[in-house]
Amino acid sequence: ATHKLLLLPGDGIGPEVMAEVKRLIDWIDAQGIARFTIENGLVGGAAYDADKLPITDATMAKADAADAIIFGAVGGPKWDSVPYEHRPEAGLLRLRKDLGLFANLRPAVCYPALAESSSLKREVVEGLDIMIVRELTGGVYFGEPKTITDLGNGQKRAVDTQVYDTYEIERIARVAFDLARKRQNKVTSMEKRNVMKSGVLWNEVVTQVHGREYKDVTLEHQLADSGGMNLVKWPKQFDVIVTDNLFGDMLSDIAAMLTGSLGMLPSASLGEVDAKTKKRKAMYEPVHGSAPDIAGKGMANPLAMIASFGMALRYSLEMGELADKVDQAIAAVLAKSLRTADIKSEGATVVSTSGMGEALLKE
Amino acid sequence: ATHKLLLLPGDGIGPEVMAEVKRLIDWIDAQGIARFTIENGLVGGAAYDADKLPITDATMAKADAADAIIFGAVGGPKWDSVPYEHRPEAGLLRLRKDLGLFANLRPAVCYPALAESSSLKREVVEGLDIMIVRELTGGVYFGEPKTITDLGNGQKRAVDTQVYDTYEIERIARVAFDLARKRQNKVTSMEKRNVMKSGVLWNEVVTQVHGREYKDVTLEHQLADSGGMNLVKWPKQFDVIVTDNLFGDMLSDIAAMLTGSLGMLPSASLGEVDAKTKKRKAMYEPVHGSAPDIAGKGMANPLAMIASFGMALRYSLEMGELADKVDQAIAAVLAKSLRTADIKSEGATVVSTSGMGEALLKE
Ligand SMILES: CC(C)[C@H](C(=O)O)[C@@H](O)C(=O)O
Ligand SMILES: CC(C)[C@H](C(=O)O)[C@@H](O)C(=O)O
Repeated sequence: ATHKLLLLPGDGIGPEVMAEVKRLIDWIDAQGIARFTIENGLVGGAAYDADKLPITDATMAKADAADAIIFGAVGGPKWDSVPYEHRPEAGLLRLRKDLGLFANLRPAVCYPALAESSSLKREVVEGLDIMIVRELTGGVYFGEPKTITDLGNGQKRAVDTQVYDTYEIERIARVAFDLARKRQNKVTSMEKRNVMKSGVLWNEVVTQVHGREYKDVTLEHQLADSGGMNLVKWPKQFDVIVTDNLFGDMLSDIAAMLTGSLGMLPSASLGEVDAKTKKRKAMYEPVHGSAPDIAGKGMANPLAMIASFGMALRYSLEMGELADKVDQAIAAVLAKSLRTADIKSEGATVVSTSGMGEALLKE
Repeated sequence: ATHKLLLLPGDGIGPEVMAEVKRLIDWIDAQGIARFTIENGLVGGAAYDADKLPITDATMAKADAADAIIFGAVGGPKWDSVPYEHRPEAGLLRLRKDLGLFANLRPAVCYPALAESSSLKREVVEGLDIMIVRELTGGVYFGEPKTITDLGNGQKRAVDTQVYDTYEIERIARVAFDLARKRQNKVTSMEKRNVMKSGVLWNEVVTQVHGREYKDVTLEHQLADSGGMNLVKWPKQFDVIVTDNLFGDMLSDIAAMLTGSLGMLPSASLGEVDAKTKKRKAMYEPVHGSAPDIAGKGMANPLAMIASFGMALRYSLEMGELADKVDQAIAAVLAKSLRTADIKSEGATVVSTSGMGEALLKE
């Protein structure tokens, strides 16, 4: 079978780290392990510069047809004054929304070799392995009205709307419970039910889904603010965390930072399984952003991007064994004390983006 | 002059820690240093148990008449099934909203003696001194609609609304800039302008206020998610952080946890200065919550509550010198290695809530 991939490098360090994935794909192809059809597309500021849009309909059509989308990063100060509707992030949000990628899986894993780069004490983060399941197509990101109105007298009013329906909470809860069963069998749901009606409904629906379908999994509820505190205090108490789009944005970034290696963390955004084809739309993306400050310098860490491609092999392309090999190769380059600048430590050899990609390929 | 105080101990550990403030007030009174008229009131679950309301109009009237309100904490599992409108937190939210307490000041200070209790490395947090200025009467906490609607077919829809007007952002920005001038002269404003219209307006208004009135202060903008990451990575880059109600809730809790001593941190919630009386309504409250798990055990740390009373002396009662003495007494008991259970460390003497209150009084 030939796997259809769409590569969307985006902005900033996106193209640099994508180049290392491209190299890996070419190698797999050359070895005859698997066949790929590769499409390329523009997204974010790069797309805006070319087409005055953060993503075109043509690219969306390619995304719709792909078995997996491999996404770099978008955004940067260059596009700060672009109209709101055309800002780089709008390209990413359209991909998520139009393809129905409601389940964002963000593992926060602390590689023992990198525990020292964390700002937290080694004993707090060493061996950490959390999975954050973030709802990705609802909430305040997409709710209407979303407006700025001129009230006169120099006053404006900005409105954003947080909306959740039962079915949206049910399906993301199921993703979390299913994942927990393959892990430590524990789910922590986070919301602000003491302040938000969406938190009340979230809590109610997650509790119902648990009671109906997943009694064997341990379920715990935390308020999102104290959940954030607990993440910083003793993150190992968590296995799977399930939360809404905005809380998930904040909490997954914080969890990522605990590990000390943002440049190492992949993510997957999955749609619903199609009843006929049994396939699901999927996009794979590093957790780090476009890092405009180091873009073009060959300093970026390509491992999160490569690990994201590894997740694609596992979740979309049914090549679990090859995914294992990618993960082993990542562990191997770390064990050889090769480090990009973001994770450098005493005694390690600092390598460039392509140096790291090459070393990985050798493994 | 006689100072009118309203004490609202609330739920959980609230009454225990308030008792230690009461002791301090009695001592000040007995020494003839100042005169106080003390009113007491119920709020939260305690009020609900007595009156089926999280706060009564009578208590609100007392709050309105007070020079300062000293607030403990509200909430706990006992009231989990109370109707949403009457849940304990509604009492706190009514106080904030009806008294117009729009400016929530949350210092995150790492006491050197306690740096070890942080989950972060000593060098990351030692000497940390951040002031988080959180907008407290707007945003998703109070915006309408705020509803759960039955859609039929077993589906419900929950809606919360984030609303900000220009004047709300202007006044909180001014509070932040004024504070920065007395500190390190730097303000970091946090929002999600890449996703939220309220973030766009927030960014615009803070920038305008800065350009018009505070050009001498350094202003920086960060997206709230990367701001959260930076808090965990290198918190000392911040001086004053200004942000909205919900982001402020999350970020101030995380900042508090960095210090390793949640039980030490006070907060102030301030209204606008009245043009006639030159006074402002104010409520003082520890950052920690009601901690139902340790309530009634005499284990709670009263220092955050006492430090909150210290802030009242400073900001509302014009007794800055006495406030200094309170702060010095707190430092002194810590220097004597007295610790409540939450901050205990090797070699320290663990004391009870009242043991700590007593030791403080001696100092
Ligand atoms: C780029 C931005 C729109 C995005 C988000 O807020 O979801 C990013 O922060 C993320 O977490 O993927
Ligand atoms: C108790 C709760 C309503 C409150 C809030 O969310 O504002 C608390 O978390 C706080 O930060 O003061």
